[in-house]
Amino acid sequence: MSHSHQDLFENRKQFQLERFILFSDAVFAIAITLLVIEIKVPELHITPITGKAVMDALSGKFSEFFGFVLSFVVIGQFWLQHHRLFGLVNDFDSRLLILNLHMLFWIVLVPFSSSLNSRYAGVDSVWMWYSFNMFMIGLSLYFLWSYISNPKRKLSFIADDPIRRKSAIVRSLTIAFIFLLGFILCIPGWYVTSYAARFVYFLIFPAMMFINRRYKYKK
Amino acid sequence: MSHSHQDLFENRKQFQLERFILFSDAVFAIAITLLVIEIKVPELHITPITGKAVMDALSGKFSEFFGFVLSFVVIGQFWLQHHRLFGLVNDFDSRLLILNLHMLFWIVLVPFSSSLNSRYAGVDSVWMWYSFNMFMIGLSLYFLWSYISNPKRKLSFIADDPIRRKSAIVRSLTIAFIFLLGFILCIPGWYVTSYAARFVYFLIFPAMMFINRRYKYKK
Amino acid sequence: MSHSHQDLFENRKQFQLERFILFSDAVFAIAITLLVIEIKVPELHITPITGKAVMDALSGKFSEFFGFVLSFVVIGQFWLQHHRLFGLVNDFDSRLLILNLHMLFWIVLVPFSSSLNSRYAGVDSVWMWYSFNMFMIGLSLYFLWSYISNPKRKLSFIADDPIRRKSAIVRSLTIAFIFLLGFILCIPGWYVTSYAARFVYFLIFPAMMFINRRYKYKK
Amino acid sequence: MSHSHQDLFENRKQFQLERFILFSDAVFAIAITLLVIEIKVPELHITPITGKAVMDALSGKFSEFFGFVLSFVVIGQFWLQHHRLFGLVNDFDSRLLILNLHMLFWIVLVPFSSSLNSRYAGVDSVWMWYSFNMFMIGLSLYFLWSYISNPKRKLSFIADDPIRRKSAIVRSLTIAFIFLLGFILCIPGWYVTSYAARFVYFLIFPAMMFINRRYKYKK
Repeated sequence: MSHSHQDLFENRKQFQLERFILFSDAVFAIAITLLVIEIKVPELHITPITGKAVMDALSGKFSEFFGFVLSFVVIGQFWLQHHRLFGLVNDFDSRLLILNLHMLFWIVLVPFSSSLNSRYAGVDSVWMWYSFNMFMIGLSLYFLWSYISNPKRKLSFIADDPIRRKSAIVRSLTIAFIFLLGFILCIPGWYVTSYAARFVYFLIFPAMMFINRRYKYKK
Repeated sequence: MSHSHQDLFENRKQFQLERFILFSDAVFAIAITLLVIEIKVPELHITPITGKAVMDALSGKFSEFFGFVLSFVVIGQFWLQHHRLFGLVNDFDSRLLILNLHMLFWIVLVPFSSSLNSRYAGVDSVWMWYSFNMFMIGLSLYFLWSYISNPKRKLSFIADDPIRRKSAIVRSLTIAFIFLLGFILCIPGWYVTSYAARFVYFLIFPAMMFINRRYKYKK
Repeated sequence: MSHSHQDLFENRKQFQLERFILFSDAVFAIAITLLVIEIKVPELHITPITGKAVMDALSGKFSEFFGFVLSFVVIGQFWLQHHRLFGLVNDFDSRLLILNLHMLFWIVLVPFSSSLNSRYAGVDSVWMWYSFNMFMIGLSLYFLWSYISNPKRKLSFIADDPIRRKSAIVRSLTIAFIFLLGFILCIPGWYVTSYAARFVYFLIFPAMMFINRRYKYKK
Repeated sequence: MSHSHQDLFENRKQFQLERFILFSDAVFAIAITLLVIEIKVPELHITPITGKAVMDALSGKFSEFFGFVLSFVVIGQFWLQHHRLFGLVNDFDSRLLILNLHMLFWIVLVPFSSSLNSRYAGVDSVWMWYSFNMFMIGLSLYFLWSYISNPKRKLSFIADDPIRRKSAIVRSLTIAFIFLLGFILCIPGWYVTSYAARFVYFLIFPAMMFINRRYKYKK
């Protein structure tokens, strides 16, 4: 039995959906890998080069390492959300493509924001920009969730299931809100220092665990 | 029931088509992500580093940001066209592969042209080159559209549908023409300044909206 | 006959699994290709530029070339392991995604570690870091193997086959152990020089051949 | 009807094959896109910056552009060969994976060789290295062709067809031979100048056309 014409058409439609998901993944993968080229190997111009000198130079790069790890974890977590989101999508339209490109715009900016952050870790406005970038990713994921879970669009399995819809909305808004909080706490002249703000990001993990426990992840 | 030999052969042929589409996407994704590494983090050599100094240095990079956003939007829009185009393709031959590689050549050049443009935004001939690069992408997409919609080739669903063929040709020629117009307006000594030319690109959006309304996007 | 709803759902689940495997491959591919941009073309400022001068400058880059080849071979071998591993996986859960992201974290770091290593090949602590990075990849692959081969998880074909499970565990632990040995031999003040340690890596090949002979690779 | 266990297993095997092909494509795509970051935007430190000065600086980069176009065309042509080759493969074993990684090693080196070539276009030994790199890609593609077309391996549709086997071998050896010729002509002290050698590469196109005419490309 060869594939019927109907099957071929179904396959093309499925492939068109899979294609833009894999395109998004390529952008995620490049952005997450480019993070590392921002950690420059230190240049020492001494003779002889001792292990101690190299270690000293590397330890002076602690804030770059911290920035790299933070950005990797944050992009990784956004990728996990995107993976979960598109596991529930069974159709697309041109607006979904544009909403997805909008999210990718902010993903592509992360290596720049992360590098700026590593270079000027002590400057509040730099942390504001970093938090703003992450907030925009969170917000664009919220746009994606609310678009695909809209029953009118008929793009998703979950559109008929009010509980799963609600969990999706709560989850994406929570993440966006945490980065918004980080942004607000970095505003200079505020009553807490921006150093506190950095640790706000780690609220993502207990928040996710709490939400995951309430609304079990169904593959 | 295991897959029959016929099915396997059909699968291989489909995969060969999908493979070169995904290869194109990888090139698109890398080109769109490389745009950001052209925005260098400003190096300040003052002590102490104040938020104001960093903000001043960043605002001096406004033309780089504008160039990044413009190039992201333009490549994103070309990717959307490519996605739409290959949703209608159900076969390929070696000439289609070569026409596609020709388009990828001009996509790969974008990070260079965009970077040149950011660095020398005030120079007319640099905008001419940028417009020329974009025009060549538009033209190579027109070549792809007219090749796949040729009924003799039997590569596409739309080849039998004169209205869809016409809409495809109109759409791709319109985009190429807008960039050609941008190119012409940048020729030095012309009666409008090249600054006007830059805004010609934004004609893509009303033009697309108009064409989309006339010829509804069928997934 | 069109795809039934059940088929579509099976396809989505399979695609979700394939998506994160292809995402991992994109990260592998970028990391392995970024290795080469660490080999900088030598800048000569003499006139005329003779073939001999260029060759001399290139031969001074021997340790960079050696580092590039070593890192390519090591990442390539880890990719082969990952390819084999996920050939046996038929389902996933969110913990598997996180274990995989953990492995990708250490893969993404390789271009940095490799570049550091090329720049300061004579420094023991740099080799310790390089060995540590590779050891962490080996260890995270061991975590992946032991997770997917756990019969409780029902993620793999091999979970029911105690011999294949054992071979998988032995193989991944062996590789991790070889890099741990390299790490230990590089500790300064040890009775062998760290130069010896570098060659410990090449034990991977006889070790793999030995294990492959004992436990035949079944596709 | 849900997928049977046999179907799932067939799918996994197919996906394992497709995975390493897509991994190869990712490496090809990154290598071909990295070519462009070797063309640096010229830095002018004059006031005012005139169009003429920028154009002069760009025309001084002619050999870089030529190198970029040549490398793009050559990698593109190798990708076309790889695409054709794996269209005929229906199974794999671990040796095929290793032969493919060997080819990717030489692909990954191209951005370096191309950049070296652009920087020192007048130096014979640099052209020797460039030709050697391309020759090694051609040779590794020949290894791949002769491996998959070996009837003992049962990896390909063409293994039973002596005419197609012969055409595959002839094609891949011809390309490798052309680059070997380029290498030989660049040896200093030879009776032709190395400038002639550069144009030897363009023999690929008439050679391919001739071979394609004799042995029609069957998709």
